[in-house]
Amino acid sequence: MSDSNKAVVLLSGGMDSLVVMAYVHSLKKDIYALHLSYQQNTAEKEKECFNKICDHYQISQDKREIIDISFLSKIGGSSLTDKSMNVTDFAGDSDEIPSSYVPFRNTHILSMAVSLAEVKGADNIYIGANYEDSPGYPDCRPEYYDAFNNLVQKGTKEGTIKVHTPVIMDKKDEIIQKGIALNAPFELSWSCYKASDKACGKCDSCALRLRGFKKVGMDDPISYQGE
Amino acid sequence: MSDSNKAVVLLSGGMDSLVVMAYVHSLKKDIYALHLSYQQNTAEKEKECFNKICDHYQISQDKREIIDISFLSKIGGSSLTDKSMNVTDFAGDSDEIPSSYVPFRNTHILSMAVSLAEVKGADNIYIGANYEDSPGYPDCRPEYYDAFNNLVQKGTKEGTIKVHTPVIMDKKDEIIQKGIALNAPFELSWSCYKASDKACGKCDSCALRLRGFKKVGMDDPISYQGE
Repeated sequence: MSDSNKAVVLLSGGMDSLVVMAYVHSLKKDIYALHLSYQQNTAEKEKECFNKICDHYQISQDKREIIDISFLSKIGGSSLTDKSMNVTDFAGDSDEIPSSYVPFRNTHILSMAVSLAEVKGADNIYIGANYEDSPGYPDCRPEYYDAFNNLVQKGTKEGTIKVHTPVIMDKKDEIIQKGIALNAPFELSWSCYKASDKACGKCDSCALRLRGFKKVGMDDPISYQGE
Repeated sequence: MSDSNKAVVLLSGGMDSLVVMAYVHSLKKDIYALHLSYQQNTAEKEKECFNKICDHYQISQDKREIIDISFLSKIGGSSLTDKSMNVTDFAGDSDEIPSSYVPFRNTHILSMAVSLAEVKGADNIYIGANYEDSPGYPDCRPEYYDAFNNLVQKGTKEGTIKVHTPVIMDKKDEIIQKGIALNAPFELSWSCYKASDKACGKCDSCALRLRGFKKVGMDDPISYQGE
């Protein structure tokens, strides 16, 4: 039933998931692309990026899945889903959990991927989780993924599904280097939490992305406000 | 921030969750009741039971949360959410996974409870998971809950949230006995997977419930077809 050549790739449309997609594509896996949308500020833009990246990697429509998990916004407690809260600007590296934290968000996302993998008979799940995206998100740490894989083994029929985190310990510039080596189309990705036309350049996610490109010595091909 | 007297109780409207609610109520916890609806065949009936049980335990409206997790039906693979599949009748105890299995369903449900608990500052989550409801559901086994609690510890901010499964090792008749001792209003609960007016008496869930009441020597107060 299960097939080790089939893979579910979580593709948010961000840079990290783009590079993971490029990597899994290079492994010649049979790919199902999964996008989770939760009425975050930039939901439409991210959906558009998801589809463009799928087009680029010739993933057919029947292997693309977009699922609305906006029930998360009912629970609230995060500036990504609660429109009454402001997304904070990047305050430098700190151990504070940013206001963009959705409690236990990655478990919801990964559980979706596991359910899909089990239905499709795929043994592998790939996610662009990245430790540097912490400080703060407890569910971006390697220990969290170990615990999740243990849960999957206990909680699924065959116990063969595994979540892979190929860029988890990379710095943003290392992810960009990997993407360059794999010819990843960075111009199709989106990282900004705040804006959908031109990236704000100021939120946590923009700041990390820009710092990565600067370190690599390459221009980020997407447009930023004020340019 | 977190409060060990606050509890999230998962209340499906079924008999097991009713007895768990009665138990947590007896502990004098400050209760948030959470109901997940996923367009299953009997969704409306279960929602009605949820509200009646909340009324009975005087849980105010602002402490009741109903969340639609019908994204599960997009993934399919289960007769509970896929209307093109038939719910199989009870075939006696076996190791076969029943067609009503939703891949990894309990992880979705528990994750919702964890997100809500973190937002509300509740340290405790109670679920009426029951091992006898296996054979088959891998996510009803005690090992699964241990693995989940380990994940919660790793994946939440304070790591203080814990899932409790007070009836997990009980037989249905033992759950009924506990419910009787706690004055649980069984007439407000619903277990049937198939019907919403009178219980079918034949699906897995009805069969286990009826067997439990028979063993206790008490009439089930709800109505069954053909009575």
